[in-house]
Amino acid sequence: MFDAAGPVVGIDPGVSCCGYGAVARGSAGTLMAQAFGVIRTEPGDELPARLAVLERELDELVRELGPCALAVERVLFQVNTRTAMSVGQASGLALAIAGRSGVPVFHYSPNEVKLAVTGDGTADKAQVQTMVARLLSLDRTPRPADAADALGLAVCHLGSAGLRSALDAGGPLPDGLARAVGAALAKEAGR
Amino acid sequence: MFDAAGPVVGIDPGVSCCGYGAVARGSAGTLMAQAFGVIRTEPGDELPARLAVLERELDELVRELGPCALAVERVLFQVNTRTAMSVGQASGLALAIAGRSGVPVFHYSPNEVKLAVTGDGTADKAQVQTMVARLLSLDRTPRPADAADALGLAVCHLGSAGLRSALDAGGPLPDGLARAVGAALAKEAGR
Repeated sequence: MFDAAGPVVGIDPGVSCCGYGAVARGSAGTLMAQAFGVIRTEPGDELPARLAVLERELDELVRELGPCALAVERVLFQVNTRTAMSVGQASGLALAIAGRSGVPVFHYSPNEVKLAVTGDGTADKAQVQTMVARLLSLDRTPRPADAADALGLAVCHLGSAGLRSALDAGGPLPDGLARAVGAALAKEAGR
Repeated sequence: MFDAAGPVVGIDPGVSCCGYGAVARGSAGTLMAQAFGVIRTEPGDELPARLAVLERELDELVRELGPCALAVERVLFQVNTRTAMSVGQASGLALAIAGRSGVPVFHYSPNEVKLAVTGDGTADKAQVQTMVARLLSLDRTPRPADAADALGLAVCHLGSAGLRSALDAGGPLPDGLARAVGAALAKEAGR
C-alpha cells in the first residue's frame, strides 16, 4: 500500500522475469537498497497461470514494501510487437496494482536510467550495474540483471525527484548526477 | 469463477473500451447471448487508475457470469508497438483473472472470427455484426462494435469447440459454418 515515507520501488516488467528493487533515502541523502530481486514464472505453464502468479507476487510486494512511488521501465517503440505485448501484460498488472493502492507511477526509459545513474546515456549494462552498486553501497553488483535494472529505475526516480524539488525551490543544482538527471528531464519535457 | 456449465465469454481487450459478450448453447444447439457490453475507462484519468478500474470490472464480470471459457482476441503482429502495449495491458488483466479463477483461455484472430461467423475470412465488420445478431437471434446488431466483436469471439469459440468434439467423435461435419471453422482450425494448426 502507499506509504509517503516508503521506498521508491523500481519495476522492470516482464512475464518470464520481472525485476524489482526498493530504494530509500537515508540520512545525509545517501541511498539504500531495502530489497531487490526478481519474480519468475514457469515457462512451461500457460500464460494465464503465469500472469496470475505474477499479479499475486507483485501485489504482495507492494503490500510489504509500502512504496511512495513505482518507477517502471518505459517501453521503447523500437521493440517488436511480441515484446511490446508481453511487457504490456506484465506492466499492466503492476500499474493496476499501483492504481488500486494509490501508489503514483513514473516511467523512465533505459537511456534516462543510464544517464541518471552514470551521467552517460550511452553507458553499457555493466557500467550501470557497477554504478548502481556504488550508489547503493552494495559490496557487489546486484544479480540478476533485471533486479539491478529495477534498482537503477528507483535510483533514477530519486535523483529526478530530488532535482525536481531543487528546481522547484530555486536552489542550486547538487552535482554531476543532478546535471545528468536534468538532461534526462529536459529530454523528457521535449517529448 | 469457472463454471463448466457457464457461457463462453468473449473479450475484445482495450484500455479505453473493452468489449465483452457471454454466449451459451441452448437446446437444439442454438446460441444465446446472455450478456454483452463494454467496459469504458476515463480517458482523462491516469493509466494506473484506468487499469485498476478495468481490472475490478473484469473481475466482477467473471464472478457474475461464471464462464466455462474466455475467448480473447489475438493481437496481430502487424499492429504498432503502442497499440500492442495497450492491448497487452488490458489482455494481461483479463488473462490473470482467468488464471486465478481457473477459467481456460482461447485466442482467435479477427480473421478466424470472421471465417467462423460468416464463412468468409475477408468479411467486413458490418457483415460480421449482422451474422452475430442472426446467429444469436438478436433483433438488432449489438452495439457498440467492441461488444459485437466480443460476441463474435464467443460464437467463434463455440463453433470451433463443437467442431473439435465432432472431429474427436469421428462424427459427420455439421454444415457450412463448421467447414469455415474447420478451415480456421487448419490455419491455426499450421502455425
